[in-house]
Amino acid sequence: MALKYEILKKSGKSRLGKLHTKHGVVNTPAFMPVGTCGTVKAMLPESVAATGAEILLGNTYHLMLRPGADLVEKMGGLHKFMNWNKPILTDSGGFQVMSLSGLRKLTEEGVTFKSHVDGTKYFLTPEESMNIQHKLDSNITMCLDECTPYPATYQQAKDSMEMSMRWAKRSREAFVDRDGYGIFGIQQGSTFQDLRQQSADALKSIGFDGYAIGGLAVGEGQEEMFKALDFAPDMLPDYKPRYLMGVGRPDDIVGAVLRGVDMFDCVMPTRSGRTAQAFTKYGSLNIRNAKHREDERPVEEGCDCPLCTSYTRAYIHHLQKCNEILAVMLLTWHNIRYYQRLMQGLRDAIANDTLDEYVKEFYDNQKKGDI
Amino acid sequence: MALKYEILKKSGKSRLGKLHTKHGVVNTPAFMPVGTCGTVKAMLPESVAATGAEILLGNTYHLMLRPGADLVEKMGGLHKFMNWNKPILTDSGGFQVMSLSGLRKLTEEGVTFKSHVDGTKYFLTPEESMNIQHKLDSNITMCLDECTPYPATYQQAKDSMEMSMRWAKRSREAFVDRDGYGIFGIQQGSTFQDLRQQSADALKSIGFDGYAIGGLAVGEGQEEMFKALDFAPDMLPDYKPRYLMGVGRPDDIVGAVLRGVDMFDCVMPTRSGRTAQAFTKYGSLNIRNAKHREDERPVEEGCDCPLCTSYTRAYIHHLQKCNEILAVMLLTWHNIRYYQRLMQGLRDAIANDTLDEYVKEFYDNQKKGDI
Repeated sequence: MALKYEILKKSGKSRLGKLHTKHGVVNTPAFMPVGTCGTVKAMLPESVAATGAEILLGNTYHLMLRPGADLVEKMGGLHKFMNWNKPILTDSGGFQVMSLSGLRKLTEEGVTFKSHVDGTKYFLTPEESMNIQHKLDSNITMCLDECTPYPATYQQAKDSMEMSMRWAKRSREAFVDRDGYGIFGIQQGSTFQDLRQQSADALKSIGFDGYAIGGLAVGEGQEEMFKALDFAPDMLPDYKPRYLMGVGRPDDIVGAVLRGVDMFDCVMPTRSGRTAQAFTKYGSLNIRNAKHREDERPVEEGCDCPLCTSYTRAYIHHLQKCNEILAVMLLTWHNIRYYQRLMQGLRDAIANDTLDEYVKEFYDNQKKGDI
Repeated sequence: MALKYEILKKSGKSRLGKLHTKHGVVNTPAFMPVGTCGTVKAMLPESVAATGAEILLGNTYHLMLRPGADLVEKMGGLHKFMNWNKPILTDSGGFQVMSLSGLRKLTEEGVTFKSHVDGTKYFLTPEESMNIQHKLDSNITMCLDECTPYPATYQQAKDSMEMSMRWAKRSREAFVDRDGYGIFGIQQGSTFQDLRQQSADALKSIGFDGYAIGGLAVGEGQEEMFKALDFAPDMLPDYKPRYLMGVGRPDDIVGAVLRGVDMFDCVMPTRSGRTAQAFTKYGSLNIRNAKHREDERPVEEGCDCPLCTSYTRAYIHHLQKCNEILAVMLLTWHNIRYYQRLMQGLRDAIANDTLDEYVKEFYDNQKKGDI
């Protein structure tokens, strides 16, 4: 088996697992910080590891444009290039082609687009995406798919999903199996239950090392997302990891874990670190707010990150007002650590049969807000 | 004695020393990284300490505007506020008032100026500068002076220096003596030898814990600066530390140490880290240069900083092209470490009677350039 996944325990639909890759083990439920351009913004990789993160997400779209997959391959692969020796998952590039690049043209064969950096024209096919992710030496390769926009009519969602399933087959065929490396299929079908089922069936008949849920967190809101997650994960194979792409806020993640999802990625903790927002057990706060100006408390009492153990809110507020990079560095670190503590809490709660209490306390605290 | 300074050894005019403060010892010759707003830009304080830096410079002008000296005092002083438990020297604010603020008016009493941040009007006197530096809990307080612009006529330089000497006396009188804390006088007189002598005599008759050489590195060029340094340090007391303010490039520092200077500060290593420039034994290089694109070598072979031990030039070039904060973080770290290695090298060479060879090798290597 290319990627071994063990499920150690279940609690309701929630699962405690271990995903084994060539570069180490990922304990699930897991949150993957995003390292778009071969760096988790404003973090040294050893600091990312210190937060407890066991796997990063890299963006194929950004890396194929700069510095290019051939250069990364020449430099010994993405792990070595960016000095991160733990597992890496790469997306397929498809989502960013649609959201970032210019002059896109989508055909059955693939997608033509112009780089948002310098206008260079590229043609991305399932086969080329696999080739690029192989050169990056990604531990978990994602199929090229079309992320169906929301809202979509039933027919649009069906056509889009069906093409993604044909691309999933082509991706699987182009992927080179290796021990400790794997490929994940991506379920589409928007919020339509029967399309989600057809997509899951198509993926299962191809066979993947893991299954992602795509096309959610694209504007439908948490309520609609949770409705889809009430059925979508159940359609995927039980003993394979399930990955909800691009999600999300802490309460999104908790709700998705309760619905059987094992893996997550989101720019939320890192991007928020650059906009002065900090996640805490009592909800999020913005350190630019004048009320923090003379506050001698840490950002989050009890957090063990460098921000919370060594600095006051007053100091971070000051740094932020002066646009100091250290504010971004410390807030990013804290936010990633917050997410990793959340995941550790969920894993511990599944292991200890205390998930209900953990989740209740999580929501109760979140509701309190910053005090 | 408020600050104890030991000279352990001399080699020609160069001195190996130890400056004892309440927050620890500074080995001289020493380079002080600049922490303008209560942070060395893009560095965690523990990383600054890891470079070997034993003392930082803080800017009174910036800190009095934001967050204000009263707030820093309330937070337990600058060391605690910024999580740096080693010595801190603060400048007087005078230089930045002249170079950064708007609508200045200089009188015998002090200087009126408007904040460059929000236009608030301030009145800075020698007494107020001492008061602010006291609230910051600075280990080494600098007298308020006027940094004579260059070029200046003899009469301009004389008038400016004489007012600075009157301000030095007022500064000394307003300074509160405490064990482990001290105040430095600042010699002015532009490039005129007799004015430098008059200034030194005035300062000595007041009596300070250390003596700075001000008014150099303000546009006169290295040749003129070295001419002034051929006589200026000799006019200052032998057994007190001598501090050349705002200097400089590595070869400026080496030349000044040979002329009897013990302490330095400059934004060069930190600012260069934000403009892609790296200092190395073979001169400086700009990592944005296309020639680094596929270069698998470290920025500086043999350097023990994180940049050089864990990353290729190709990777830093990539980060820089993508405007990634990590490039700034790593280049800043490297540059500060480079400066600290230079100072350690100078100290070792004085200790081992090998200063001539060290300096010859330094200049020979610098001339080779990046290869």
